[in-house]
Amino acid sequence: MNRLKVAQVGCGYWGQNLIRNFWELESAEVVMACDPDEKARSRMARRYPTVQLARSYAEVLSSPNVEAVVLATPVSTHYEFAKQALLAGKHVLVEKPMTTTSLQAIDLIETAAREGKTLMVDHTFQYTAAVRRMKALIDSGELGELLYFDSVRINLGLVQSDTNVLWDLGPHDFSIMDFLLGQEPVSVSAIGVKHLRTPYENMAYVTAQFDSSLIAHFHLNWLAPVKVRRTLVGGSQKMLVYDDMESSEKVKIYDRGVSQNHDPANRERLLTSYRNGDSLAPNLDTTEAMRLMASEFVNAVQEKRAPLSDGYSGLRVVRLLEAAQRSIQQDGGVVLLSPMIPRPQISRAAVASVA
Amino acid sequence: MNRLKVAQVGCGYWGQNLIRNFWELESAEVVMACDPDEKARSRMARRYPTVQLARSYAEVLSSPNVEAVVLATPVSTHYEFAKQALLAGKHVLVEKPMTTTSLQAIDLIETAAREGKTLMVDHTFQYTAAVRRMKALIDSGELGELLYFDSVRINLGLVQSDTNVLWDLGPHDFSIMDFLLGQEPVSVSAIGVKHLRTPYENMAYVTAQFDSSLIAHFHLNWLAPVKVRRTLVGGSQKMLVYDDMESSEKVKIYDRGVSQNHDPANRERLLTSYRNGDSLAPNLDTTEAMRLMASEFVNAVQEKRAPLSDGYSGLRVVRLLEAAQRSIQQDGGVVLLSPMIPRPQISRAAVASVA
Amino acid sequence: MNRLKVAQVGCGYWGQNLIRNFWELESAEVVMACDPDEKARSRMARRYPTVQLARSYAEVLSSPNVEAVVLATPVSTHYEFAKQALLAGKHVLVEKPMTTTSLQAIDLIETAAREGKTLMVDHTFQYTAAVRRMKALIDSGELGELLYFDSVRINLGLVQSDTNVLWDLGPHDFSIMDFLLGQEPVSVSAIGVKHLRTPYENMAYVTAQFDSSLIAHFHLNWLAPVKVRRTLVGGSQKMLVYDDMESSEKVKIYDRGVSQNHDPANRERLLTSYRNGDSLAPNLDTTEAMRLMASEFVNAVQEKRAPLSDGYSGLRVVRLLEAAQRSIQQDGGVVLLSPMIPRPQISRAAVASVA
Amino acid sequence: MNRLKVAQVGCGYWGQNLIRNFWELESAEVVMACDPDEKARSRMARRYPTVQLARSYAEVLSSPNVEAVVLATPVSTHYEFAKQALLAGKHVLVEKPMTTTSLQAIDLIETAAREGKTLMVDHTFQYTAAVRRMKALIDSGELGELLYFDSVRINLGLVQSDTNVLWDLGPHDFSIMDFLLGQEPVSVSAIGVKHLRTPYENMAYVTAQFDSSLIAHFHLNWLAPVKVRRTLVGGSQKMLVYDDMESSEKVKIYDRGVSQNHDPANRERLLTSYRNGDSLAPNLDTTEAMRLMASEFVNAVQEKRAPLSDGYSGLRVVRLLEAAQRSIQQDGGVVLLSPMIPRPQISRAAVASVA
Repeated sequence: MNRLKVAQVGCGYWGQNLIRNFWELESAEVVMACDPDEKARSRMARRYPTVQLARSYAEVLSSPNVEAVVLATPVSTHYEFAKQALLAGKHVLVEKPMTTTSLQAIDLIETAAREGKTLMVDHTFQYTAAVRRMKALIDSGELGELLYFDSVRINLGLVQSDTNVLWDLGPHDFSIMDFLLGQEPVSVSAIGVKHLRTPYENMAYVTAQFDSSLIAHFHLNWLAPVKVRRTLVGGSQKMLVYDDMESSEKVKIYDRGVSQNHDPANRERLLTSYRNGDSLAPNLDTTEAMRLMASEFVNAVQEKRAPLSDGYSGLRVVRLLEAAQRSIQQDGGVVLLSPMIPRPQISRAAVASVA
Repeated sequence: MNRLKVAQVGCGYWGQNLIRNFWELESAEVVMACDPDEKARSRMARRYPTVQLARSYAEVLSSPNVEAVVLATPVSTHYEFAKQALLAGKHVLVEKPMTTTSLQAIDLIETAAREGKTLMVDHTFQYTAAVRRMKALIDSGELGELLYFDSVRINLGLVQSDTNVLWDLGPHDFSIMDFLLGQEPVSVSAIGVKHLRTPYENMAYVTAQFDSSLIAHFHLNWLAPVKVRRTLVGGSQKMLVYDDMESSEKVKIYDRGVSQNHDPANRERLLTSYRNGDSLAPNLDTTEAMRLMASEFVNAVQEKRAPLSDGYSGLRVVRLLEAAQRSIQQDGGVVLLSPMIPRPQISRAAVASVA
Repeated sequence: MNRLKVAQVGCGYWGQNLIRNFWELESAEVVMACDPDEKARSRMARRYPTVQLARSYAEVLSSPNVEAVVLATPVSTHYEFAKQALLAGKHVLVEKPMTTTSLQAIDLIETAAREGKTLMVDHTFQYTAAVRRMKALIDSGELGELLYFDSVRINLGLVQSDTNVLWDLGPHDFSIMDFLLGQEPVSVSAIGVKHLRTPYENMAYVTAQFDSSLIAHFHLNWLAPVKVRRTLVGGSQKMLVYDDMESSEKVKIYDRGVSQNHDPANRERLLTSYRNGDSLAPNLDTTEAMRLMASEFVNAVQEKRAPLSDGYSGLRVVRLLEAAQRSIQQDGGVVLLSPMIPRPQISRAAVASVA
Repeated sequence: MNRLKVAQVGCGYWGQNLIRNFWELESAEVVMACDPDEKARSRMARRYPTVQLARSYAEVLSSPNVEAVVLATPVSTHYEFAKQALLAGKHVLVEKPMTTTSLQAIDLIETAAREGKTLMVDHTFQYTAAVRRMKALIDSGELGELLYFDSVRINLGLVQSDTNVLWDLGPHDFSIMDFLLGQEPVSVSAIGVKHLRTPYENMAYVTAQFDSSLIAHFHLNWLAPVKVRRTLVGGSQKMLVYDDMESSEKVKIYDRGVSQNHDPANRERLLTSYRNGDSLAPNLDTTEAMRLMASEFVNAVQEKRAPLSDGYSGLRVVRLLEAAQRSIQQDGGVVLLSPMIPRPQISRAAVASVA
C-alpha cells in the first residue's frame, strides 16, 4: 500500500503535534506544511527539512502531490478550508470543533459523500486508552442503568482569541460524552459569564438532559486556579471516575451503586440503599492518543470506510455547542433538540430544523 | 458566671456530637437529654449517667431547670419545637436548616426578639478554621473583585428519609457562601433529578446569580462513587481552593488572577492575560468547629448579643433552599429573590414577599 | 456473662481514647480512673461522673472491685505496673511498647502464666481493617514470595519526653510487620540521628533482614514537614500499598510483579520481566480499631484464651526495638537475633540470650 | 557565532531525547547520528533526513565536520568513547553516570584539561526548575542548619541490563544531592538485595553521613508497584518537599522547624519545640530541563568555561556510587570517603586514594 501523502495546514501548537505524529507513521508521508507565519514555516523547515513549505492554502489545494489535508487552523476557517479541500479531491482531517454551525457541518458531510472523500474530525480523547476503556465498560452493560455524566474541565488559561470557553473546552467533553453514552440529549441549557469586561464567556455551566432520567453536566472555566479534568459516570450498578490529571490510574471503576428491595413489612414500599464495594484501576496502555487518531485517519482513507470520529460525530458535537451557546444568550433558557435523522437518511433540511 | 443549663433534644448521630461538645464546655451544664427512642436514651444513660432523661419534648419544656434547648430533631419539627421553647422562655440552638419555610424562619426570629431569647442555628462550617481563614482573606480585599463561588459536595449516601439532597447537603454550602460572600443572590435556578424511582431528588445542580457578574454554583449528589468536598472562590487578584477532604492544607491561596493592560499599539484595546504565581497553604488551627459553635451559643446567651450564626443567617439559607426547590419544580426556571430588608427593620410582611 | 470491671490507669491522650472505648463496650464496666494529675482526674470526673477516681496506683491495686487494669502510663512504668497488677490478681492490657527490655517482657509473660491472668499489649494497628485485610491477603499466598516490607512513618512532632523516635514510632511498624509477615528477622541494623543538641534521636532508619532474601526497612522521623504513613509490601506475584493518610482506599493491591521465563534462544538463560496489571482498592469496614482491640481484651479474659496481641507479640516488638537501639549505639553495626524458642517452651534464659 | 557541530552517538531512548533537544537549538547543528542498530538509524533518517548517519563510532571520530559528541551509549563504553573523542579534539557531553570508576573519571578530567576541550555530564535534574529553585533557597540560608536529605525513587521497571538499581537510579539522586547540599559525605553505607535470582541488585537503601549531623538517605527500587520520586530536605528553620510526580506544585516550602528556648524555670535546661507554619508552592517555569542542559553545553564550549555539571560533578557522583557498591558487597559496612582535594589542585593520585 502506498503511503498517504499528507499536507499539514496550520503549524501552531496543535499543528506541530499533528505533523509530528503523521511524520512517525509508516503509512503516511508528510509532503507539505503550510502556515502564513514565517517563523512557523522556518521552524518546520528546521525540523522536517524534506517537507515542502507553503505560505498560502491555495498552494496546498493546487498541489497534485497532496492527497489529504490536516487542518489545524482557526475555527472560523474550518468550514471553508475543508470544503475547498474536498472539492479539490482531497481527504480531510479537521481539528475540533469541526465547524461553527451545524449547517456547515452538514454541508461538509454531504460534500464528502458526493466527492467520495473521507471527512474526519480530531476528537482526540476518543482515542485515549482511558476513554476507550470506559467505552468498553459502558457498552458491556456493567454499569447498569446510566444515571449521570458529570465533567469538570477547568484551569487558568484565559487567552485573547476568537472564541469563548464553551467553544474552546466544550468540544472535548461533548465528544467524550457523545462517544461514551451513544445517546443524544433532548435538551440543553447553559449559563455563561463574561468576567472583567472580557468580550467572551470565560466560564460556563452546561446541562444536557436525555429521554430517560440520565443527565449530563459540564463545568468549563478558564479562570480556575487549579487544573482539573475529571469526569464521573454514574450507573445503577457501577460508577466510573476518569481523572486525566492522574499520572497513572486515570480510570477507576467503583463497584458502588444503588439497591432496591421490597420492604419485608410492606410489599408496596421500596427500600433504597447503596452498595459500597471495591474500586478497580485498570492498567491502561500508553500509546499516544494522537498517534492512534492519525493512524485511524490513514486507515479509513485506505480502507474506504467511515472513521471512528466521522463527520456525523463532528456534527453532533457542533449541534450541542450551538444549542448551549443559544441557551447562554437566553440566560439559561432550555433549548430543545429534535432527534437527529438516522445517518443514512440524513439531509440538510432535516437536520437544519433541529438545533 | 453560672453554667448555662442545657437540654439536648434528639440524640441521634448529630445529637451525640452536640451533647459531647456541650458536655466538655466549662460554661455549660447538660442537665437533660430527650429522645423518644429507648435505645438512644439508654446510650445517653451509659455515657452521661448524671443527665436526666426525657422521653417527650413536653418534659423538657416544662422543666424549670432547663435554660436552653439544643434541637437535633427531624427538620420537619424544627419550627414547632423552637417556637415552643422560645415561648417557654428557653434559648434555642437548632440544627440546620433552621426551618422548612422562610415564613417559619421569620416567625422564629420575631418570637425570639419578643421573648428576649437567643435564637441560633448550627451552621457548623462557619466555625471551622478553614472557613474562618477564608472569611478573613475575602474581607481583607486580597482576592480583588469576586468572580465566582463553585462548590462540589458529593458522596455515596442515599438514605430513605424525609428530605432530598438539596435540603440535606445544600445548607452546608449555602451557609458557607452566605458567610464568605456577605452578599445575597438576586436569582436562583436549579435542576434536580430523582433516579431509580426514588421519591426525592438525589442530585441537584444549583446556580445563584448576584447583582454583579459574581456567580455561585453547587453540585450536590448522593450517588457519587467518591466523596468530594471542594469549593473554589475566584477573585480577580487571588483565588482560593478549599478541599475539606485534605487532612492538612485544606485551604490554598493562589496568587493567580487576571491582568488587564492597554494594548501599547492601540490604547482603546484592552489586553487580558493571566498571572500564575505561587500558592500558599496556611497552617490552620485544629480546634473542633463544633466546640467553637457550642461555645459561641453559650457566650451569646450570657452576653445577651446576637450569635455569629443568628436567626437571620438561618433565614437567608432557608430562603435559598426554598428558591432552589421552587426552581427544581419548574424544571430549572429562574426564581428571582427580592432584596432582604436590612435586619433592624425586617418584618414578616416584607420578607414574606421575597422568596 | 458479667461485665469485666476495668480500671483506666493514666488518663492522658491515649488513656482518654482507651477509657472512651471501654466505656462504650457492653461487656465491660469502667469502675475506676487513676491519674496523679488533678486536671486529668477532674476531666474524667466531668465525663464519667460515676467512675471512682484514684490519685495513686496503689488504690487501684488494692481495690477488690477492679478485675483488670488498662495501662496508659509512661513507658518506663509499664513493667512495674503490669507486674504489680498481675501479682494482685488483675488482668493487664498495656500500651505499646510493652516494656523497655525483653527481659522484662519475658518476666511479664511468665508472671501472667503463673498467675493465670491475661496479658495483652495494645498493638492497635493489628486491629485496623486495613491491616487485617492485608493479613488475609498475605496469608492466602496471593502475593507470591515475599520480597520486602518498607515503611515510612514521619511527621512533625518533636516532643520533650523520656524516649526517642525509635521507641515512640517504631512499635507501630514493628508490630504491623510482625503480624503481617509472621516471620522473625535474623538481624537488625539502624542509624539514628540527634539533631540540634536534642538528647534523643529524632530520626532513624532501621533495616531488618530475614532468612530468605526478604528485607524490611523503616524510616522514622519526628522532624518531617509532612505526615506520611505509608507501607509497601512487595511480593513476586502481587504488591500492596497501605497509605494510612488516605481517607478512603487505604489499601491498594497491585497485580504487579516479576515474571521469569527461559530465553527461547538459550535455555540456560533466565529472562526477567515485570507484569503491570490492574490495581484494586478493597472497600474496608469502618469499625474503630481501638474498639475491636478493647473488645478482644475483654473476650480473651472471659474466654480464658490468648489474645491476638499477646505477651509474646509484645516481646517480639521489644526485642526488635532493643536490637535497633543497640545498632544505633554501634553506628549502624549489624545486631544478630537468635531464633526465638517456640512459644510453649519459652523460658527466660532462652530468650535472654538472643537479643 | 557559528553553530556548534554535534554528533549524537547512541540513538536509543535517551539518545532520541538528546538529539531532539540539540536539533531545536539555534546555537547547535546536529550533523551526524551514530548507532550500530539499523532500525535506530532508519528512525533517525526519517526524522532528521539531513543528518549524516554512521554505523560505527570510528566514523564519528574521524569526521572533521564533528566538533562535539553527545554520548548516550551503554555505561560501560562511556570512558573509552569519551577519552577517544577528547583525544580526537572533540568536546564531550556524556550521559550519567560519567564512568564506571572514579579513576576513569579523573582520567577524563585530566585529558579534557590537557586537550583544552569541554567535558560535561548530563545530570539532567540539575537543570530542572524544581531543583534550581531549591538550590536558590538552600543557598540563601533560609532553611537554617541542614539536617537531612531523604530521597525515594522507586517504580516498577526491572530490566535485563548491564547494571543494578544503584547505578541506574542512584546517579539522579546523588547528583541532585551533590548540587543542592554543596558538601561531600564522609562515609557511605548501603544495603542491596537481589530478589528472585536476578543477577543484579533490584533494590538498595543507601545512607551518606557528613561532617555535621547532616545525613542523607536513598531508597532505590525497581520492584515497587507505584512510581514515587520524592525528596525531603530538612532544615532547622524551613523544610522542602520535592515531589516530581506532581503535575504542578512540585516543590513545597514548609515554614516548619525546630525552636529551642531556655526553660524559664531553669536556665540550664533547653526546651525543644516545633513551629508549624504555612507552606508555599512556588510557581515554577516550564522550560524543559534537557533543553537548558543542551544549551549549557553549547554555551560552555563557546565561552570556554566549565559547565555547571562539569567533570568534577561527574566524578563526585561516581565516587559515591563506587562507595555504595563497595558497602553493598560488604553487607552494609561503612565505607569512609577522604576529603576531595580542592578542584584546582586535583590530581589522579590524590583522588585515587580517597574512594
